[in-house]
Amino acid sequence: MGKLYGAAVVGQSGGPTAAINATLVGVIRSALSEIHDGGCITALYGMRHGIEGLLKKDLIDLDAIFSSESGEDDLTTLSHTPAAALGSCRKKLPKVEDGEEIYATILSVFKEFNIRYFFYIGGNDSMDTVAKLSAYTAKCDYDCRVIGLPKTIDNDLVGTDHTPGFGSAAKYVATTMQEIIRDCAVYTVPAVTIVEIMGRDSGWLTTAAGLPRLISGYGPDYIYLPEKTFTDEQFLSDIRKALEVHPNVVIAVSEGIRYGNGKYVGEGAQSGAKDVFGHQYLAGTGKYLEQMVKEKIGCKVRSVELNISQRCAAHIASWVDLDESECCGEVGVESACDGETGCMIAMERVGGIDDPYTITYKAKDVSQIANQIKTVPEEFITPEGNNVTDACLCYLRPMIAGEVPLSYKDGLPRIYVFS
Amino acid sequence: MGKLYGAAVVGQSGGPTAAINATLVGVIRSALSEIHDGGCITALYGMRHGIEGLLKKDLIDLDAIFSSESGEDDLTTLSHTPAAALGSCRKKLPKVEDGEEIYATILSVFKEFNIRYFFYIGGNDSMDTVAKLSAYTAKCDYDCRVIGLPKTIDNDLVGTDHTPGFGSAAKYVATTMQEIIRDCAVYTVPAVTIVEIMGRDSGWLTTAAGLPRLISGYGPDYIYLPEKTFTDEQFLSDIRKALEVHPNVVIAVSEGIRYGNGKYVGEGAQSGAKDVFGHQYLAGTGKYLEQMVKEKIGCKVRSVELNISQRCAAHIASWVDLDESECCGEVGVESACDGETGCMIAMERVGGIDDPYTITYKAKDVSQIANQIKTVPEEFITPEGNNVTDACLCYLRPMIAGEVPLSYKDGLPRIYVFS
Repeated sequence: MGKLYGAAVVGQSGGPTAAINATLVGVIRSALSEIHDGGCITALYGMRHGIEGLLKKDLIDLDAIFSSESGEDDLTTLSHTPAAALGSCRKKLPKVEDGEEIYATILSVFKEFNIRYFFYIGGNDSMDTVAKLSAYTAKCDYDCRVIGLPKTIDNDLVGTDHTPGFGSAAKYVATTMQEIIRDCAVYTVPAVTIVEIMGRDSGWLTTAAGLPRLISGYGPDYIYLPEKTFTDEQFLSDIRKALEVHPNVVIAVSEGIRYGNGKYVGEGAQSGAKDVFGHQYLAGTGKYLEQMVKEKIGCKVRSVELNISQRCAAHIASWVDLDESECCGEVGVESACDGETGCMIAMERVGGIDDPYTITYKAKDVSQIANQIKTVPEEFITPEGNNVTDACLCYLRPMIAGEVPLSYKDGLPRIYVFS
Repeated sequence: MGKLYGAAVVGQSGGPTAAINATLVGVIRSALSEIHDGGCITALYGMRHGIEGLLKKDLIDLDAIFSSESGEDDLTTLSHTPAAALGSCRKKLPKVEDGEEIYATILSVFKEFNIRYFFYIGGNDSMDTVAKLSAYTAKCDYDCRVIGLPKTIDNDLVGTDHTPGFGSAAKYVATTMQEIIRDCAVYTVPAVTIVEIMGRDSGWLTTAAGLPRLISGYGPDYIYLPEKTFTDEQFLSDIRKALEVHPNVVIAVSEGIRYGNGKYVGEGAQSGAKDVFGHQYLAGTGKYLEQMVKEKIGCKVRSVELNISQRCAAHIASWVDLDESECCGEVGVESACDGETGCMIAMERVGGIDDPYTITYKAKDVSQIANQIKTVPEEFITPEGNNVTDACLCYLRPMIAGEVPLSYKDGLPRIYVFS
């Protein structure tokens, strides 16, 4: 594969995470090296709001921005800033045959800016964009290296040991769960606390709620995942059993837990309830279970929805996660310069979960990755289906390790915002 | 006032905070010095679950626990552990004339253990306990020093510049608000995000949501406090105005905002809605406003309830707050040994909000403090009533300063738990 000279463009897509800007920084650092050392990459643009920005030629010159005197400091701050600093979008590209116009627009922008390197940081939908775009440019004989850089707090991409962004979300969930368990332990009155954690199709992030059990010895009583069929009977019976042992029962549930008929538990609350404006009331899984415990058991009960902090709590990001996320960006640029295209940068764990933690990075065919979902395997869930195994926690543990040396101003973490 | 020799007892009461254990550590450190240096205090007991533990003689020997080889390390970990490590209670003492029996029980426990020093860490109700107990022991001619040590994330105690625990909660709120604002900024579709913050009677904690504006330049669009009458009309008009300027509107509201008729806004949601079990549905203020925006404006909208992390997110505690909280404990012991009783340790700020931040500690008559509420003053709220002033943010800023050098194990903050 010969050397390919041209401009690079990088964008972010899908939901924000605490680590997506670290991957952006990895791309910027590597691409700027290429630019300034006379490598293949000749310019670096950032798409505002992902592919939408590319279509509108809403591009910013990242070389100009970060080659300034404060560039290195700004990059460090950017890597610690939550959410997608370039902006994001939820746009999914159509099939090539259904959207010739949009692909033609992309190609014309590529040609106008001589874009030969396309880096897209995102989850499943973004990998689909990478697969389609690499196939399209190949079909058009337009020489271009199209690389996907994974990012999702859901950890549900196949072909990679785990995903950048997951470790930081897991560290937030584990830390918050440990704090909630302490908070719940102060009173002697029987009480149930239900913590709802993100994860519609897979329970990975909810498994992280179990980490305090492995690390400090105090975990939640039960953990319910979408991978196991949920029944009201077992849930209530589990709680009654726990209340016999101690008064402060703490439960973690995935928002996506489902009944045997395939319906989300949270949907139950939507079947009848209407709000004061006459609209269907969307309660959420935790709120629905809270009402159920109140009704059927009658003890003190509350639900806590961890909400968007799960994807943006950069102040408690995992050092390992941010380091790996940045590495993915760097390896993406290197792989592209080496001739890879239509790939996603995947992480492979060397050895088993009992070996010292070592990760290698590898470009993998993105068409084998996009549009699939990796769920929590059987051996990571207890036979009763209401908790996670130690093997699961040992798999998770290295991903939340290490604290990020944040820079603070007047008590708040410094952030980088593109003007 | 002559020297008074005898045992000391310390307890925690009311809702947990991230700093209440730091005050406990202040008491333990000072009392242990007294014990080991031949001072007035001869023993130190911890009440389990506050006054309830005292009544049941559920006391633990804190001298024995922390005079061990690992004692100093354990105290540091304890000071960084969230929630009330001794356990808490919600018990309010009756008037002396209505509860002779309970007071007699307390006195008999005092006599049995020769308790001459009583330290109670808590909020308004706990200060009421301190006031009643000091009056009762004086009435009985039982020489005892009864001291209140303030703690509340609500910052609503009178007689003190601010309360221990508030700074850490404010730092959590400000940090999370900054992260949520970044998270909301990634898309171009008009959207409203409503963040509900604790505070039933005063809006202090909600004011902290404004700190990112002062420190990093990006604050929420509006802040609504219980101190100002809430109207749906202004709320909707404010949002419409903001949406004309930018698509990502972020709003902070106190759970305790009220209409002109005195009803909580959150009560609106309770007037008609029933859950699927036929119970009155308790929506909460944020959820109610979310439905209102959906109904009346029709744009994308979500609400986020920060929930109990506000009082237990020790991983983002304020160093200033933890330091001040521990100082309150130490000064409490010193003041008691010096003869004070019926007092709360208050903090006074030397100079104005533009001067360098300096705090002095002073024992104040607790009967002048208990059962009153300090609200956010007029000059801290904008004339429109929908935001906080810079003067308010300058008052708050020093309280969130500094980060606590936490010790981590495998990625989770270490915690101390009494066995």
